[in-house]
Amino acid sequence: MSTPAGGTSTGRGRRPGGPDTRGAILSAARKSFAGKGFDRTTIRAVAADAGVDPALVHHYFGSKDDLFLSALEIPIDPREAIPSVFAVGLDGAGERLLRIFLSVWDDQQARLPLLALVRNALTTEAAASLLRSGMFRLIFEPIAELLGSDDARLRAQLVASQLSGLVITRYVLRLEPLASLPADDVVAWVAPNLQRYLTAELSR
Amino acid sequence: MSTPAGGTSTGRGRRPGGPDTRGAILSAARKSFAGKGFDRTTIRAVAADAGVDPALVHHYFGSKDDLFLSALEIPIDPREAIPSVFAVGLDGAGERLLRIFLSVWDDQQARLPLLALVRNALTTEAAASLLRSGMFRLIFEPIAELLGSDDARLRAQLVASQLSGLVITRYVLRLEPLASLPADDVVAWVAPNLQRYLTAELSR
Repeated sequence: MSTPAGGTSTGRGRRPGGPDTRGAILSAARKSFAGKGFDRTTIRAVAADAGVDPALVHHYFGSKDDLFLSALEIPIDPREAIPSVFAVGLDGAGERLLRIFLSVWDDQQARLPLLALVRNALTTEAAASLLRSGMFRLIFEPIAELLGSDDARLRAQLVASQLSGLVITRYVLRLEPLASLPADDVVAWVAPNLQRYLTAELSR
Repeated sequence: MSTPAGGTSTGRGRRPGGPDTRGAILSAARKSFAGKGFDRTTIRAVAADAGVDPALVHHYFGSKDDLFLSALEIPIDPREAIPSVFAVGLDGAGERLLRIFLSVWDDQQARLPLLALVRNALTTEAAASLLRSGMFRLIFEPIAELLGSDDARLRAQLVASQLSGLVITRYVLRLEPLASLPADDVVAWVAPNLQRYLTAELSR
């Protein structure tokens, strides 16, 4: 809405939307997400910190969710990937979900910003909200919605428990042999357990 | 081995082994475990920091493993609890293990020092060794030994992945409804998955 003092709203006085601007926005976004968590980060404050108009943040990165995913540099968009897992039915959904998870986490480049998120998120209560309101909301709430049953939220959280435990043991602590186990073997061991959380009827 | 300058090895000159001494040793131990990790913590250095003879540390707390467990204030000793889980066979071992896990982590008092350990351990590579060489070694290596099979180490780590994921989702992030789910329901959902890691034959 406002322009820097002495600037104009059009022409050369406006801050150009080049790579530096994108970088400045991402840098401000990362700082805010890490420092304030997800809920208390606003597009407006990120824009102010980057010295740009909020409209430019929306123009380049879309919504706050989009900005969050861009800041994490996740190579796939969970808002497309998760529905694709369930689009062909519940059969094999555990394996399809796990293969997407492994494709991201087994990628050394993709893993780094996620590892930083996990490490920070567990350290402070404020930063834990980043994992809850950001990451988990974008991945596990859609799973619960797609499952649709009364206990869908719990089932999605149990899936989350197994996957976050894989993050801890395979990627953070790097316990061997699990850390070096080929993805196909991880799938053979873990996918049936995920599938059980998604679809099993409890015999109680 | 040595006594403070001017002290004698017997009588009133010796530092008494009262509650203050125990507390000083525990405090020094916690500081060392948190700062240096497990491997680089020595009884000798803990004793020096607490201003006591190393023999007194051994006298009160036994081995370094004992001191570690005392510093964490874990209400049960995994070196007794783990073998008891497997003493009556593999049938139901997943459930017995999970019930011990829940009895500790569902106890608000017992949980606090463990939560601190987990939070620290994930933050720095040095502190991660505390979880690996301390906690995981005392819990999951005995499980691997008791299983005895070729893939026992991997099976124990998969169990570790599910249990550490429960720590993250139920106790650190406190996702609802999982965080408030009664222990019996957690067992109904999770124990069969642990059991599968312990005993399932992979059909590959």
